[in-house]
Amino acid sequence: MISGVLLDLAGVIYDGEEAVPGATDAVRRLRDAGLPMRFVSNTTRSTKPAVLDRLARLGLSVAADEVFTPAEAARRWLAEHGRSPHLLVHPNLVQEFADLSAGLPKAVVVGDAGEAFDYPALNAAFRELIAGAELLALAPNRTFRDSDGKLSLDAGAFVTGLEFASQKSAIVLGKPSQPFFRSALATMSCPDDQAVMVGDDAETDVAGALQAGLGHAVLVRTGKYREGDERRFEPVPTATLRDLSEAVDWILDTRTP
Amino acid sequence: MISGVLLDLAGVIYDGEEAVPGATDAVRRLRDAGLPMRFVSNTTRSTKPAVLDRLARLGLSVAADEVFTPAEAARRWLAEHGRSPHLLVHPNLVQEFADLSAGLPKAVVVGDAGEAFDYPALNAAFRELIAGAELLALAPNRTFRDSDGKLSLDAGAFVTGLEFASQKSAIVLGKPSQPFFRSALATMSCPDDQAVMVGDDAETDVAGALQAGLGHAVLVRTGKYREGDERRFEPVPTATLRDLSEAVDWILDTRTP
Repeated sequence: MISGVLLDLAGVIYDGEEAVPGATDAVRRLRDAGLPMRFVSNTTRSTKPAVLDRLARLGLSVAADEVFTPAEAARRWLAEHGRSPHLLVHPNLVQEFADLSAGLPKAVVVGDAGEAFDYPALNAAFRELIAGAELLALAPNRTFRDSDGKLSLDAGAFVTGLEFASQKSAIVLGKPSQPFFRSALATMSCPDDQAVMVGDDAETDVAGALQAGLGHAVLVRTGKYREGDERRFEPVPTATLRDLSEAVDWILDTRTP
Repeated sequence: MISGVLLDLAGVIYDGEEAVPGATDAVRRLRDAGLPMRFVSNTTRSTKPAVLDRLARLGLSVAADEVFTPAEAARRWLAEHGRSPHLLVHPNLVQEFADLSAGLPKAVVVGDAGEAFDYPALNAAFRELIAGAELLALAPNRTFRDSDGKLSLDAGAFVTGLEFASQKSAIVLGKPSQPFFRSALATMSCPDDQAVMVGDDAETDVAGALQAGLGHAVLVRTGKYREGDERRFEPVPTATLRDLSEAVDWILDTRTP
């Protein structure tokens, strides 16, 4: 049975400024069914208030504490470990780190910096790493579906390159890290084996959730999905479905054993 | 015994425009001893004529066919496989590929592009890869010693990132690929077990040469060498010495059994 739902955002609920067809109705059907749900996103080009605004413009009323972002997880990590961030992130995200202490030992924080991934910025981050800084990856995703409809390089490529050059391993804050999934689950009082994750990334959403111990993970054929993704990563999805609307049908059918 | 010598260039014979102290005399002593030698460089920011010019300005007369570069190896690969290059290389190196056929299926060629490693260029290369292009790495080096004396990101970081995002493996053309070492050895009629490689990169020069079957590899503590490099990669160096001058002493001592 299923008693709690984690939903990805980009590629599942919206693509850019547009809702994925049927997605907002699907979210409302989950709400009406009384199923607790949380939103877990690896998007690191928008602040959390911007994410909430976008959901509101699509007619979805979502509370701030229902949304989990890698930037929040990074802020907690930096505070717990007494580190100041050296940022390699999208300009939109810089303000999320503005109030943190400066002057402490550094940790390099890598998000999807987009055009800000240039040689001087990457090399400056590399030099911090070999001088002793830890490497924090907001998200390790390989690709995302860009505004022109094509796949583009996501932060994972740059994280992997920095790991290779510095011979350090990144600490992943967002999906597929187990603590990230667990921080969302912990707010729903839902047993792991009764939780389902719905996402368009077969690796970080689906295989990641199953590896983190969730009972179910549904891959949707929207967003960045490419033919064959359901066979490309282990563990394979519990189900691979057309979109969030079909996923919600499946969840409501599977809800009671 | 030793009957043939392969020498790295940057960090061994010169650093930027300056000769490494004692290096040009050391090369002359090898010449005077009648030992055949070849120069194998992973530098991909200079054309071969520019490399020969730089050696000449340091007072070393080296013939074009004594120097082996990854760009030459890439030109051969492209011709043999009927591919046109999609270049992600330093502007200085573009002319080395100018006369190759256009309009054939693509192979992405990655060198140390320096400031030309920006997001649009990396993403364009990534899109060629997922559309079917092969990935050719002129060199997979992690770091190089930059003009400010500090280590900087070399091409390997970007090759690794593109491999991760595209889920393709790069074909390495320069060191440490076995064919690259062998193409230089083949011109010296020197048995593998009587060849020595001298370099400042414990991974691509030293471990690479030993893995490729050379009998000996000497790590020098000049150029990009960092304390502990001689224990960082397997196989470890046959000897770790102060500089090329000491390496030549060692070679001349080891020459006869």
